[in-house]
Amino acid sequence: MHHVVIVGGGFGGLYAAKALKNAPLQITLVDRRNFHLFQPLLYQVATGGLSPGDIAAPLRWILRREKNIRVLLGEVTAIDIARKTITLEDNRGEIAYDSLLLATGATHTYFGHADWETNAPGLKTIEDATTIRQRLLLAFEAAERETDPIRRQAWLTFVIVGAGPTGVELAGTLGEIANDTLRDNFRSIKPEQARILLVDGNDRVLSGYPPDLSRKAEESLLQLSVRSRLGMRVVGVDEEGVTMQPDAGGPPQRIESRTVLWAAGVAASPLGKMLADGAGAPIDRAGRVMVQPDLTVPGHSEILVIGDLAHVENDGKMVPGVAPAAMQMGAYAAKVISSHVTGAPAPPPFRYFDKGSLATIGRAAAVADFGKLRFGGVIAWLLWLFVHIMYLVGFENRLMVLLKWGISYTTYNRGARLITGQIEPLPEFELIDRGGEKSTQSHTEIVHR
Amino acid sequence: MHHVVIVGGGFGGLYAAKALKNAPLQITLVDRRNFHLFQPLLYQVATGGLSPGDIAAPLRWILRREKNIRVLLGEVTAIDIARKTITLEDNRGEIAYDSLLLATGATHTYFGHADWETNAPGLKTIEDATTIRQRLLLAFEAAERETDPIRRQAWLTFVIVGAGPTGVELAGTLGEIANDTLRDNFRSIKPEQARILLVDGNDRVLSGYPPDLSRKAEESLLQLSVRSRLGMRVVGVDEEGVTMQPDAGGPPQRIESRTVLWAAGVAASPLGKMLADGAGAPIDRAGRVMVQPDLTVPGHSEILVIGDLAHVENDGKMVPGVAPAAMQMGAYAAKVISSHVTGAPAPPPFRYFDKGSLATIGRAAAVADFGKLRFGGVIAWLLWLFVHIMYLVGFENRLMVLLKWGISYTTYNRGARLITGQIEPLPEFELIDRGGEKSTQSHTEIVHR
Repeated sequence: MHHVVIVGGGFGGLYAAKALKNAPLQITLVDRRNFHLFQPLLYQVATGGLSPGDIAAPLRWILRREKNIRVLLGEVTAIDIARKTITLEDNRGEIAYDSLLLATGATHTYFGHADWETNAPGLKTIEDATTIRQRLLLAFEAAERETDPIRRQAWLTFVIVGAGPTGVELAGTLGEIANDTLRDNFRSIKPEQARILLVDGNDRVLSGYPPDLSRKAEESLLQLSVRSRLGMRVVGVDEEGVTMQPDAGGPPQRIESRTVLWAAGVAASPLGKMLADGAGAPIDRAGRVMVQPDLTVPGHSEILVIGDLAHVENDGKMVPGVAPAAMQMGAYAAKVISSHVTGAPAPPPFRYFDKGSLATIGRAAAVADFGKLRFGGVIAWLLWLFVHIMYLVGFENRLMVLLKWGISYTTYNRGARLITGQIEPLPEFELIDRGGEKSTQSHTEIVHR
Repeated sequence: MHHVVIVGGGFGGLYAAKALKNAPLQITLVDRRNFHLFQPLLYQVATGGLSPGDIAAPLRWILRREKNIRVLLGEVTAIDIARKTITLEDNRGEIAYDSLLLATGATHTYFGHADWETNAPGLKTIEDATTIRQRLLLAFEAAERETDPIRRQAWLTFVIVGAGPTGVELAGTLGEIANDTLRDNFRSIKPEQARILLVDGNDRVLSGYPPDLSRKAEESLLQLSVRSRLGMRVVGVDEEGVTMQPDAGGPPQRIESRTVLWAAGVAASPLGKMLADGAGAPIDRAGRVMVQPDLTVPGHSEILVIGDLAHVENDGKMVPGVAPAAMQMGAYAAKVISSHVTGAPAPPPFRYFDKGSLATIGRAAAVADFGKLRFGGVIAWLLWLFVHIMYLVGFENRLMVLLKWGISYTTYNRGARLITGQIEPLPEFELIDRGGEKSTQSHTEIVHR
């Protein structure tokens, strides 16, 4: 039987597999994770609002009833175009395909500064999210222990690099945390005095949206005490902070901050490069495979690439790397593969149907862009909420997320505020005396401001 | 103002702090974690039924309204009895106390075989739970990839060492997972053919309970396909399995298993030893501090020890290391400290009030021991459920856990079945051919049994 191998169980791969469930095909879905991750809500895990389990669902569970689909845990490390096989982890297994569908998505990139990653983690995986959660919460804990006012301010300064949707979500939610969630939780610091800076090289936030929505988003961010530093290019990241170069010229600027988060730069998964090397597939600067209008690789109609790994153009404009595009490509790719097998006529070239864009900023704040219809505020936020709950996989996840949001909205609490994993050494202090006061006399006014 | 330092935010420490919230005292609660963990449900995290966030609540959040309580993230590494100070992480901070309350609990021990830990993780922390979750789920994934029948059987063999409440919970839940949750999730293996073995040196499971309840528990376990190997002492644990010595004599027995979990052996936190060295406090073999009837350390009425770290006897019988005992000691210790400060008469010696014991086995199965009243089955399980929901800290956690149980009970799903973190290399296989069949011909009958 015709064997379709799908690599990646994200939006693209999963929707393709589901669309092929009744086709006369044998399907193997390979993923290095055992779960489908609902990435649009990953920032909620990073900020302690949701648990990893709330936005993930085991791939086996989702596909358990599709008898023609086998799920296999593994990481693809090589593709042999001539033999039509893929290889898992350093030759630990080979899988032969008749059709190959690559949907391994993208990761973040540091524009050639890979060393920045240690001090400025990005947000693509569950582990990234729990790392960021740990850093954010630990910064407030460290500030509470710190007696030196300068160092304490550096602990209470948060820099988010990249003012796209992810950066805006992170910054906005961090604003909520500092202003509401952590209120009255500390005795030496006031979390609401945290500085949250959103840095971007563009001259406005959410530059993919129309300018009027960028302005709305910026206003909402300001209400959450997030300040934007726009037209700024980051030129250095280290343990103590960030150095930026103003686009308009002038000397570099330095921000002392112990917590820098990276929400800029997207690079395609390394499988794009493998296809370029093996099949001579053209790739763009971000490593995306430039596919044909039917999403196949030029010269290899048996290989299709979808989602964030694919560079597809409609009317000269690139289809954006968003979840709806990946889902649509997944469903389309299933049709193409079916037509190859059954001999049915091929579908017309892929066209992305843009239903509109939504970006959330924080508590009851979002922007919606439906072409001529553009708005912000509570309505946009409710719409954003509805759409995200609707597309979550699994009834249980939908119910839990909805409930947690309801509770969080009412109580300002964020239940999953756990610091887990190995932590860095915390600040030193001299003595907390018998009255429970920190002893560094000169700092008393700050300790008890 | 009199400064009380409480070390540990578990049941003992937290209940003590809460009982002191209106006393004319300054309190500092030190914990190396930022959350209170509801340990009785930790096995649910280890088995993918609940997320860490569901059974943990930030200590700061719980105590945010108690203005006389400061929460500090830190790990106590030394106690200076003479100067009345504790030291955090290698001298990174000192805290002076007037009263010191130690409530740092216990951890698991390997009876002098610390090297077993790598291959037989125990269950005390959130990280332990996610490690065990990873191991359990990965074993099924590995078995699905494995083509050699002997090695596959080793992946599908699970050994739980220790048939106390934790071991029984883990084994029973694993039985549910293999028989129900994972049903139809795989294509090469049948999860219900997993072997789950519960090993203990005692001649019955739940040896702390009356024999008739042990029998009931063993029957319930059998229904979940858990087999008990009793009267067996573990003498070796390695990557490939477990070696046991029958108590009744005879040659050692070997079980090939890739997944061994440790639910035996409890040792007190290292602070007991510190007190023994610094204050000459007597400790028992497990490292627990043998306190006075008022829970103070002999010769040091300013130091109290409670919970699993304390060895307390009532009528010559040791108070058990369970959550209700820790809570009662916490409340009692608060009274003792108050009486020291206010000069009020000291309370009568501590007495543990045993409300009865409940142990769960799995789906609708538990045993209840209220002295003369003893029963098992659904009623015991519902009671167990009610008590555990009731004592969970936080309305949100209660609601979430109740709902997740309801859903899990109905659907057999366990929503938090995520393999996260760094994983071990998965089994090698030769080739999955174009029909989606594994190529190792000789194993076909097992691959497709």
